[in-house]
Amino acid sequence: MSELRRDPLTGRWIIVNTDEPSLPGDFDIEAQPLKGGTCPFCPGNEAMTPPEVLAYRPAPAGSNGTGWTLRVVPNKFPALRIEGNLDRRGLGIYDLSNGVGAHEVIIETPDHARTMAELTQQEMEAVLTAFKSRSLDLRGDPRFNYLLIFKNQGIAAGASLEHTHSQLIALPIVPKCVMQDEMRGATAYFEFRGRCIFCDILHHELEERERIVAENKSFVCFTPYVSRFAFETWIMPKTHRSDFAGITTEEIADFARLLREALQRMKRSLDNPPYNFIIHTAPVKAHDREDYHWHLELIPILTRVAGFEWGSGFYLNPTPPEVACQHLQNAKF
Amino acid sequence: MSELRRDPLTGRWIIVNTDEPSLPGDFDIEAQPLKGGTCPFCPGNEAMTPPEVLAYRPAPAGSNGTGWTLRVVPNKFPALRIEGNLDRRGLGIYDLSNGVGAHEVIIETPDHARTMAELTQQEMEAVLTAFKSRSLDLRGDPRFNYLLIFKNQGIAAGASLEHTHSQLIALPIVPKCVMQDEMRGATAYFEFRGRCIFCDILHHELEERERIVAENKSFVCFTPYVSRFAFETWIMPKTHRSDFAGITTEEIADFARLLREALQRMKRSLDNPPYNFIIHTAPVKAHDREDYHWHLELIPILTRVAGFEWGSGFYLNPTPPEVACQHLQNAKF
Repeated sequence: MSELRRDPLTGRWIIVNTDEPSLPGDFDIEAQPLKGGTCPFCPGNEAMTPPEVLAYRPAPAGSNGTGWTLRVVPNKFPALRIEGNLDRRGLGIYDLSNGVGAHEVIIETPDHARTMAELTQQEMEAVLTAFKSRSLDLRGDPRFNYLLIFKNQGIAAGASLEHTHSQLIALPIVPKCVMQDEMRGATAYFEFRGRCIFCDILHHELEERERIVAENKSFVCFTPYVSRFAFETWIMPKTHRSDFAGITTEEIADFARLLREALQRMKRSLDNPPYNFIIHTAPVKAHDREDYHWHLELIPILTRVAGFEWGSGFYLNPTPPEVACQHLQNAKF
Repeated sequence: MSELRRDPLTGRWIIVNTDEPSLPGDFDIEAQPLKGGTCPFCPGNEAMTPPEVLAYRPAPAGSNGTGWTLRVVPNKFPALRIEGNLDRRGLGIYDLSNGVGAHEVIIETPDHARTMAELTQQEMEAVLTAFKSRSLDLRGDPRFNYLLIFKNQGIAAGASLEHTHSQLIALPIVPKCVMQDEMRGATAYFEFRGRCIFCDILHHELEERERIVAENKSFVCFTPYVSRFAFETWIMPKTHRSDFAGITTEEIADFARLLREALQRMKRSLDNPPYNFIIHTAPVKAHDREDYHWHLELIPILTRVAGFEWGSGFYLNPTPPEVACQHLQNAKF
């Protein structure tokens, strides 16, 4: 069991691995090629992962065998564990609780050789459908207050296995730094103006058109005016939607199309960079709201976050989003 | 001139390089050995840097020549520029201002071959004295509201030159994410209990003694209970002090001793890791306060920050600070 600890100063939480601590020789920060050998995410190796919680198989077949096109399994080395209760308690001046949560891996395709940018439209729709389906299922557990869906692609982005996969972590606590800060700003704006700040940003961007990379009927892909990172790109529903898990089948098709396009443009423009994406959505227990708007943040890893950023929370972005947008628009697609 | 842009959602600021944007092809995230060739920080190459703003020379000698033991110069590629006014303004839904500030480099020793951990006591005292002296000088400029002193050691920590140096950035705005979040928490605690939260943390740690790495008369070095990073280490004055620049000559000697010890223990325990350190101190225009306590945060770069951290602000720490503390205590010193 890991421990959740709360910073009495900032209210930030951390997850500490108290079970199997990493010791001095266990770290390896220099970029190493991802480990070869038997891939636990390849067909035929299903027994190397914990039993699946969801799988798509075109032909009827038993669980945990081959024949799947997409598979969701618990993470073998989870940040948080599904068993037990939070048991919040104090320790002198500090607060802590047990590391309860869920940590699942979405294996996007059986094909080891392809990246997410190379998925077909049908495959990408299946991935997004799995995100939705797992979200709706985990929402039923009253211990979970936030569902975080994200992807690490490439070593420099934190991936430890090469076979393309995304992750879902169910958290017992709504993350403070991002979600509560975002939410506080969005709520304050709504109270002041009676409008969703994200809708207003979209309106501004779609009118000015200086940072729009691509769009379709339901979604828009743009480089935000206040991009923390070079070539940071967001995808957002055009109509007000606070809850990712409420996405319709038609919207899934449009989202899949635009996400594939965004990944391919980034791949071509930046020579296949490592990247993270994160879906920002409303908290589980208040997911239908006027003041929040779900979106995906796509961040290629091009520079290093250093002392200045850690010390200030200021970000130094070497590429204005207007310039990044032009390069992404010009990338062959 | 760079641009400062404010996120209308979170209130976070970013600095965008609008003058000389980095384009695809300019990025190089994989670890590369630092560039060889002529080092601009070595004696004899003084003309390769902008003219010095401070230098220590044992024998009387002219500015910008050799013979120095420590030298402070403006950064040749500054994040912010010293000329001009902030000129805060709106742009539709957004806010921006000019990138005004100061960005200085403290060249800690003329010796290219040594790292900061290998400085003598006298040399380390000179570095800290230079930090203090530059802080007091820059404080006189009414445009600056925060002084951030930090160091990036090693490529993975963001260093671009090998010759050991620290940096000072004077910001026109008090950074929100770290400083205002910390300050808000510290102020709320002070209002509730009438005590400095950092003093209370110190008191708790010095009593429990599970996370104390080292201490001397004026300072204590410990691994915080809520460490975001493996082997994160803080150094804090034992007596309440909100303002780094108010440090006395006697305190400088004690701080130098403990910082050298912390760097050496970390170097031996973790095989000379890349690291960042950041001095957290009170804002320029309210530096004498009961509710804040300056300290140095030392962070070895051992793991990668990935999608989970960016998406949640939660940190996954693989090494409990109690375990890290034991290893640092046992490191030969």
